[in-house]
Amino acid sequence: MASEKEVTNNGVEWRIKMADGASQTLVPEAKPASNVFLGLKLFIVGLALKVWKFLQKAWDLGVDDPRKVIHCLKVGMALTVVSVFYYMRPLYEGVGGNAMWAIMTVVVVFENTVGATLCKSLNRVCGTCLAGFLAIGVHWVASQSGERFEPVIIGTSVFLLASAATFSRFIPSVKIRFDYGAMIFILTFSLVSVSGYRVDKLFDLAHQRLSTIIIGTSLCIVVTMLVCPIWAGQELHALITRNMDKLADSLDGCVAEYFQDGDSSLVDSGKECQKKLQGYKCVLNSKATEEIMANFARWEPAHGRFNFQHPWKQYIKIGASMRSCAYCIEALNGCISSENQAPEYIKKHISNSSSKVGSNSSSVIKELAVTIKTMKKSSNIHYLVGEMNSAVQELQADLKSFPELFTSPSNSESEIPENKKIEPAASRTTVTLPPLMEIIPLVTSASLLTEIALRINGIVDAVEELADSANFVSASINDKCQKNGAE
Amino acid sequence: MASEKEVTNNGVEWRIKMADGASQTLVPEAKPASNVFLGLKLFIVGLALKVWKFLQKAWDLGVDDPRKVIHCLKVGMALTVVSVFYYMRPLYEGVGGNAMWAIMTVVVVFENTVGATLCKSLNRVCGTCLAGFLAIGVHWVASQSGERFEPVIIGTSVFLLASAATFSRFIPSVKIRFDYGAMIFILTFSLVSVSGYRVDKLFDLAHQRLSTIIIGTSLCIVVTMLVCPIWAGQELHALITRNMDKLADSLDGCVAEYFQDGDSSLVDSGKECQKKLQGYKCVLNSKATEEIMANFARWEPAHGRFNFQHPWKQYIKIGASMRSCAYCIEALNGCISSENQAPEYIKKHISNSSSKVGSNSSSVIKELAVTIKTMKKSSNIHYLVGEMNSAVQELQADLKSFPELFTSPSNSESEIPENKKIEPAASRTTVTLPPLMEIIPLVTSASLLTEIALRINGIVDAVEELADSANFVSASINDKCQKNGAE
Repeated sequence: MASEKEVTNNGVEWRIKMADGASQTLVPEAKPASNVFLGLKLFIVGLALKVWKFLQKAWDLGVDDPRKVIHCLKVGMALTVVSVFYYMRPLYEGVGGNAMWAIMTVVVVFENTVGATLCKSLNRVCGTCLAGFLAIGVHWVASQSGERFEPVIIGTSVFLLASAATFSRFIPSVKIRFDYGAMIFILTFSLVSVSGYRVDKLFDLAHQRLSTIIIGTSLCIVVTMLVCPIWAGQELHALITRNMDKLADSLDGCVAEYFQDGDSSLVDSGKECQKKLQGYKCVLNSKATEEIMANFARWEPAHGRFNFQHPWKQYIKIGASMRSCAYCIEALNGCISSENQAPEYIKKHISNSSSKVGSNSSSVIKELAVTIKTMKKSSNIHYLVGEMNSAVQELQADLKSFPELFTSPSNSESEIPENKKIEPAASRTTVTLPPLMEIIPLVTSASLLTEIALRINGIVDAVEELADSANFVSASINDKCQKNGAE
Repeated sequence: MASEKEVTNNGVEWRIKMADGASQTLVPEAKPASNVFLGLKLFIVGLALKVWKFLQKAWDLGVDDPRKVIHCLKVGMALTVVSVFYYMRPLYEGVGGNAMWAIMTVVVVFENTVGATLCKSLNRVCGTCLAGFLAIGVHWVASQSGERFEPVIIGTSVFLLASAATFSRFIPSVKIRFDYGAMIFILTFSLVSVSGYRVDKLFDLAHQRLSTIIIGTSLCIVVTMLVCPIWAGQELHALITRNMDKLADSLDGCVAEYFQDGDSSLVDSGKECQKKLQGYKCVLNSKATEEIMANFARWEPAHGRFNFQHPWKQYIKIGASMRSCAYCIEALNGCISSENQAPEYIKKHISNSSSKVGSNSSSVIKELAVTIKTMKKSSNIHYLVGEMNSAVQELQADLKSFPELFTSPSNSESEIPENKKIEPAASRTTVTLPPLMEIIPLVTSASLLTEIALRINGIVDAVEELADSANFVSASINDKCQKNGAE
């Protein structure tokens, strides 16, 4: 956003400069033609600025993720290869005028990730085959039933099958895996049926189409898998671990902001705050991406550390449990930014234990992220969870001692002497003015922290399920020793 | 879920029965062939069951939303019309063997909503035109530069333009509106370039392709707009109001469940609870749908009560503010289902005011839903918001009087005598055992209710912005009188 704003500012400045320059030379003449010229000039400059902004955005996008640029080059390469392939005359004669099917296949099937390309390729081939055979069958039946009924039979079959296939695309289980295949099915069936009226060489047509499609898809699959492959599974894996880190950072940031001293880290709070806010919001909004990725990952063969039957569905569950945690962080964030805040001396009472819950929770999440990243069962996750739960107990114990603070300030002297020393006036007011209203946000945030810790247990369970079903290796003690030694 | 489970159970029973029946007749023979037969039979029965389940699911889907069935019939109709159109010999001769372009256009472009169909149609036509002219230009340049450079120039241009167009599909602003157009651009450019090597009648090809595509798209647009049209804008409008009602119901359900007497409505709590849970979760998960709908709605002409320039983007903002409210309801729900709950007598203390906040909040949301539904500015929304805010004040006042309850039970006698009468023992324990721990969930839920009320103000602002930018009429007093009279 900031960079966009800057660009706009620059743009406005530039435009103003141009307008000034133009008016200096053109206004003395004061002819209508010059006004038109001026307007045109301004329009062109404005257009150039827009194009420039667009290009800058595109450049940023490319710099941000160079793999997108590589993907584009891959598409260009595949298309050029197909073109060159059909430039060779002998092949051209062989496959006929159907070069376009190969080109179309490359354009339509080539996707960003290997999984998506495989999914579309298989859908295209299977849809074409199935529809082709069915269409030939229907055409044979129609041709046997006389000239009068032939168009009726073919028309009816197109209507029925197109309707049925379109309807199947609404069924979730079909939509997820075979949406494209259903479309290709309709397309091929209609094409074969209609050309069946005329060409009378259906098998030739079917053979040509199928062979060109297979040429196109194999080219796509080869290029997508061999030239800098982007695996949907790997992306999903990275997305989940990245989101976990973000979640942990958000939690840390939230708790730190709420319980910090107010002066110490104001300097970097702007940047920190922004980053923190971004963090859990990514988790909130990543549901659709996760599901798409997991769906494509299922089509991918074994690659890197992932088997063919890697439990990708479990990643969706982990994502869901992370989101349920992020909802609470969102509520906590609202609570932190609310207007009436507890006074510092009350905050301090649970500041330590709250910070502990926050940091322990985030270290549990970070450990889970490491578990997934390294695909090794963590040896001390149970210890960390225990730590987190005991921190929660501690926080609740601190909350329990609150009433004593209010009801009997004389008792509290012995328990929390520093409060008394620092703010004796405030401590005394607690008797005359019961500050329950003031501590509500504090109690709420403590309670939300407890809830967050509870939901983190859900993430732990989901990750453990993943570790079991994907056969993560146990982190051996040797590993740990090496790690410690290295540190 | 329930119905699915039932089906599975039936399936298992059926399978067991079949197996029993088979074993009674077949086991005495005890031949390997019979085992194979048995296995085959079981396999077929299993397959039939799966197909049956699938069909049942499909049937439920169709019954649930008959418009999906109508859409499928529309697709079937359009395809059959195209087929019949090309069955007529004169036309066939005229447009040549390019009937497939029309069929392909219908299959690819026909979408569920008018907006999506229009978006794809315009993208297809524009992408084809632009790429066609560019390809012809490039081909002319190439043909002027001699035989040696021709393939190099064409190959390079295909590579560069395909890469650039693919990259543009990653840029969000292009992706939202012109994703399909960019794909068609690549496709047409490559096709024209490659066939340019051979056919040497590029203008003919371009003309044919364009005319068939225009025939296909116009047919799609006519059918989608005239036969039971499904407008993306109307869908979005309905989705937002439906989600608002769901949000209000969730809020009502949550508060009612938490503060109910415990016995009175246990009977319908299962169903009610389910419905309530479903409610706000729909809001949480509708972001992607809303954005897609709003994007398609922008392509639609004026229809029903909506102008061409209806501010669809504002619906996304309303959706976002509803989601921020739903996050809090999710946290509230977690709080309600937590284990340690406040004892009834403490709950009762704020039960009235909390219920009031809940019901007032939900009536504000419902009024907003009515505002959007009727597209009339509500005359009493400000009154309702005022009511809600005063209920929040009341809740906070009730919370303020909590400490008195704990610190001085002698005072509380006069204030809340019914507590004393009903549960004297409990009331006395408050002195010896300060129940702050016990009231934490209560305080948290009260605080979350306050936060929800605060966020509802955000929804009110967003809806008012919509009312202003879409020129909602003010609800006249006559209208209200009529309404009251009718009631």
